[in-house]
Amino acid sequence: MAVSDGQTTKEEVGSTPVEATAPTAFDLENQSTATARGTGTGGGVTEIVRRWKREDIIKRGSLALRGLALLFSLLSFIIMASNNHGDWKNYDQYEEYRYLLAIGILSTVYTGLQALRQVHELSTRKHLLQQRTSALLDFFGDQIMAYLLISAASSAVPLTNRIRESADNLFSDTSAASISMAFLAFFALALSAMISGYKLSTQSYV
Amino acid sequence: MAVSDGQTTKEEVGSTPVEATAPTAFDLENQSTATARGTGTGGGVTEIVRRWKREDIIKRGSLALRGLALLFSLLSFIIMASNNHGDWKNYDQYEEYRYLLAIGILSTVYTGLQALRQVHELSTRKHLLQQRTSALLDFFGDQIMAYLLISAASSAVPLTNRIRESADNLFSDTSAASISMAFLAFFALALSAMISGYKLSTQSYV
Repeated sequence: MAVSDGQTTKEEVGSTPVEATAPTAFDLENQSTATARGTGTGGGVTEIVRRWKREDIIKRGSLALRGLALLFSLLSFIIMASNNHGDWKNYDQYEEYRYLLAIGILSTVYTGLQALRQVHELSTRKHLLQQRTSALLDFFGDQIMAYLLISAASSAVPLTNRIRESADNLFSDTSAASISMAFLAFFALALSAMISGYKLSTQSYV
Repeated sequence: MAVSDGQTTKEEVGSTPVEATAPTAFDLENQSTATARGTGTGGGVTEIVRRWKREDIIKRGSLALRGLALLFSLLSFIIMASNNHGDWKNYDQYEEYRYLLAIGILSTVYTGLQALRQVHELSTRKHLLQQRTSALLDFFGDQIMAYLLISAASSAVPLTNRIRESADNLFSDTSAASISMAFLAFFALALSAMISGYKLSTQSYV
């Protein structure tokens, strides 16, 4: 039991990347046995570098997903807000479309703030919030936002179908476009919530 | 580095509970230091027992949540299926209600099968599927089912509101009851998905 297994080493690396020289010092002698035992329990230098790369990919992937969610929810809310064609063809006559607009604005604000925070953290390498707080915020925020987005998008679909039965015009097409954007934002956020859950769990909280 | 930290010990216990005597043998001498360092990194006997208890609570809690989800989705689907009062007051005239009924049936079948499997595993202590497969199935199944349930429930809400504006009768009340049951099933499954995500992550897959 000279060297702890991969799980432990990873946690040490994850929390304080600066101290990585200490683990590598005693990991070196066990590198051959570690690689012989397979990647699951290895603790060698290559293993640490690989873990770093993976964490970097996860960070960038999470940022990319948030960016996509921001783009799609911004589009959804702008398209719906511009959906005024007079008479009965105004979005604010229908509670479903008002709901979709509200959730679109909420999602834009949420993903915008999260993306800003992540970009700031990636560029300055400083953390605005405690790691635990931010991991919890990420996970629950993404999850709740994803539920709200799919709820708003699915509530607006039947109304659009019903309008299309009688009249297929610019109003129904614009609504359909906004709904599609909300669905795309939902997919991005649902994936992002999964990544946040993974990050939360590797920090051994919950 | 005589003893690995809590994370490692926990993983060993989680995969093969029968081998717990081996870790305790060398954990005994470090028990005092382990408890002195706090609960987060301890590896003593009490720590192992506590972890077993926690895993047991998680298992039972997950089963209870699945049971609740089964009950609520069964109610939702039965109430909606019995919602026939002739003329325009039949559920199958409206696509939202048909969608809710379909998702209710799907959710009943899914949670029923999962609860059966869990009860079987708890009573016989044998696993029907590989641990990894079942953890992945649990997480993605619960998550997708939760998204479907909230989607169906929220799509049916505006229609019920609209019917209530003109006529407040047994038909709209029964629909509202079915929708509420679907929302309750959603809450149970969303919690269950979080627990499944936690179980998935402690087995160090993904």
